[in-house]
This record gives sequence, C-alpha cells and structure tokens, in this order.
Amino acid sequence: MIVGTEWLVEATGCDPTHLRDESLLRGLFERVTGDLGLKAISDVWHTFAGEGGVTGMVALTESHLTCHTYPEHKIATFNLYCCRTRPEWDWETNLKTILGAAEVSITKIERGDSKPKSQISNLKSEISDLRSRRVGGDA
Amino acid sequence: MIVGTEWLVEATGCDPTHLRDESLLRGLFERVTGDLGLKAISDVWHTFAGEGGVTGMVALTESHLTCHTYPEHKIATFNLYCCRTRPEWDWETNLKTILGAAEVSITKIERGDSKPKSQISNLKSEISDLRSRRVGGDA
Repeated sequence: MIVGTEWLVEATGCDPTHLRDESLLRGLFERVTGDLGLKAISDVWHTFAGEGGVTGMVALTESHLTCHTYPEHKIATFNLYCCRTRPEWDWETNLKTILGAAEVSITKIERGDSKPKSQISNLKSEISDLRSRRVGGDA
Repeated sequence: MIVGTEWLVEATGCDPTHLRDESLLRGLFERVTGDLGLKAISDVWHTFAGEGGVTGMVALTESHLTCHTYPEHKIATFNLYCCRTRPEWDWETNLKTILGAAEVSITKIERGDSKPKSQISNLKSEISDLRSRRVGGDA
C-alpha cells in the first residue's frame, strides 16, 4: 500500500554563502510549498554556529519538507514527502538558480510499501540468475 | 561526497490505536534518540482530527527523525537522517513490539552523493549487458 511519495534531492557544488543563509532557504521552502499548494502546520529552523549550515523542517498537512546544508562541502540535501499526488517541482532549475548548484539529483521513493528495497533486491537476483545461467552456457 | 545516512522505515500491519497515540510515538522517538545518543534541537507534533494519524518531526543536531502514521492503512513510516555515523537501531524488533507491526522494512540511503540513483541504473545496465551476451551465447 503506497501512502505517499518522497523526493530525496541532493544539490552539489552550491555557493557556500547561500547554504548559510537561513532567510534564503526559508524563501526557497515558501516557493516549494506555494508552487505545489502545500499547507504548513509548523516549522523548525536552526542555523549552526560558526561556519555551520542550516537545518529546516516544515510539517505539512501533506507530510513534510526538510533541508540540511553543508557549506563546507557545498552540499544541500532536501526531503519532500507528500501523502497526496502533487506535480513534480523543478528542483534542478530552481536549485541551480537559487543556490548556485552545479548538479542536482533526485530520487523518488514510494512510501508505505513494505518492500521499498525490492527494486534493488530484484535486480540483484536477476543478475545472479543471469550469471549462473551464463556459467552454464559457457560450460 | 557522503554527508549523512538516512534510514527510511515502513511498518505495516500495525495496531491502528497505537498509530493515533501521540504519547506512545513521542516515547518511541525518545527511545530512538536515547539509544543512539542523538540530541534534539526542537520538535513538531501534530495529531490529525478524527480517525487521522500523527505527524512527528524532531530536528537533531545530527539531522532529523520524522514519522507519519496512517491508522486507516495500519501503516507508519519513519525517516532517520544522521550526519554522523551511528549504530543501527533495531527498528524491526522495536516497531513489532511498540506498534504491533506485522512487517518492518528498512531502506538505507547515503545522502549528499550527487547520483543516489546510480545503484539502480548500474544494476539495470549490468542486466542489459548480461542479456545481450546471453543472446550471443545462445546464437
């Protein structure tokens, strides 16, 4: 039973200054929630001391949105979990524009399925099977 | 560059009463953070009206812990994101005991890697390659 969809987003090569800018990241969250019509219940923001990054978490009526930034590595990671179908947000274009990201990758995972790892497990089983047959074929 | 590890946990076949019990879920979070030595910065809890579930989110100095419960489907999903190495928490035993889960599955994902989907892509490429060789072997 699928109860929601989660997008795991990794943005690398970002401008470190932007990754320490809580106000900018709050604005980014407002764009995501505004564009997708998501409703915030409550949020938590924390800027770590010194050269540290920012943690942002918003509980949504549709689940959650989080970010963690690592200015020292020029990396930001995001999670968007929606329990209702929503259009795809253009993470790549937006994070390149807003955070100066060089590369953005997105992993979409269906939540609630009791076997979320099955895709990888099934592929590994298939490879094992193909290899054993190949050995047979070679013999 | 790996900046953290995230565990996506799906618990199915849970007792619906437990999935509406915010106090029980808060206690579960305290066990996770206590057992793993994680430090909470701030949290957000929301119990949805009527027969709805509970959303819990804790910002940690080491990243975050979240849950969403779906009593109508007997499902709870958890995310634990740690930016420092931590031992594995025994989600399976604990969620079977505390929530009455029938089945618990865990997906572990490394965060910050700009190509988190590459494992699936690589496995698919390998299968394609093995299949093409097999066709050659059969010919």
